[in-house]
Amino acid sequence: MVDEELLGTHRQELRRGTVVLACLLALRAPEYGYALLKRLGAAGIPSDANTIYPLLRRLEERGLLTSEWNTDDTRPRKFYRTSPAGSALADQLMSDMTDLTASLHALNGGAVE
Amino acid sequence: MVDEELLGTHRQELRRGTVVLACLLALRAPEYGYALLKRLGAAGIPSDANTIYPLLRRLEERGLLTSEWNTDDTRPRKFYRTSPAGSALADQLMSDMTDLTASLHALNGGAVE
Repeated sequence: MVDEELLGTHRQELRRGTVVLACLLALRAPEYGYALLKRLGAAGIPSDANTIYPLLRRLEERGLLTSEWNTDDTRPRKFYRTSPAGSALADQLMSDMTDLTASLHALNGGAVE
Repeated sequence: MVDEELLGTHRQELRRGTVVLACLLALRAPEYGYALLKRLGAAGIPSDANTIYPLLRRLEERGLLTSEWNTDDTRPRKFYRTSPAGSALADQLMSDMTDLTASLHALNGGAVE
């Protein structure tokens, strides 16, 4: 039986680093914050507004995302899109993630899935 | 071209959460700190003494590792081993990691590798 508190702590640590990557991958197709949140959740990477909105602003400041207001709807929404620099970073991090997973499988003594 | 500083920051974030899991997996076979460091590095999960030694003590405090002094050698060494609770946590985190990687591959629009 796994201690739920310990599991929660370590699970969160494991997931934290992947949220940036998930955003950069998902936003190759432009999306606004709330729709991105729902998309990540549906993909199995749940996050929340308090994490995602500041993260999107930070990634934009770093030049990894661009944004544009869409005013076609009644309610204007800010759409984010992964920049070329963000896309290159996402490719590199995705490759890291694949390597890391393979390393962990190897340490686990099993074949690489 | 990926900005090296940004890559470093995000790569570190991605790796941080996996070091705990890597230790719990590797220490199913008992090992002392320095040998563990070398083993993790060889497996593609480089870390350093300033990270690993405090982490081993913390995981022991949480009941996820046990330790034993081996005095057979000229120089006594503290061997760590993953406890049953640590092993159960490792299984759960490994399963999380596999799911996360699959989710990221799906967001990337590719097949799950």
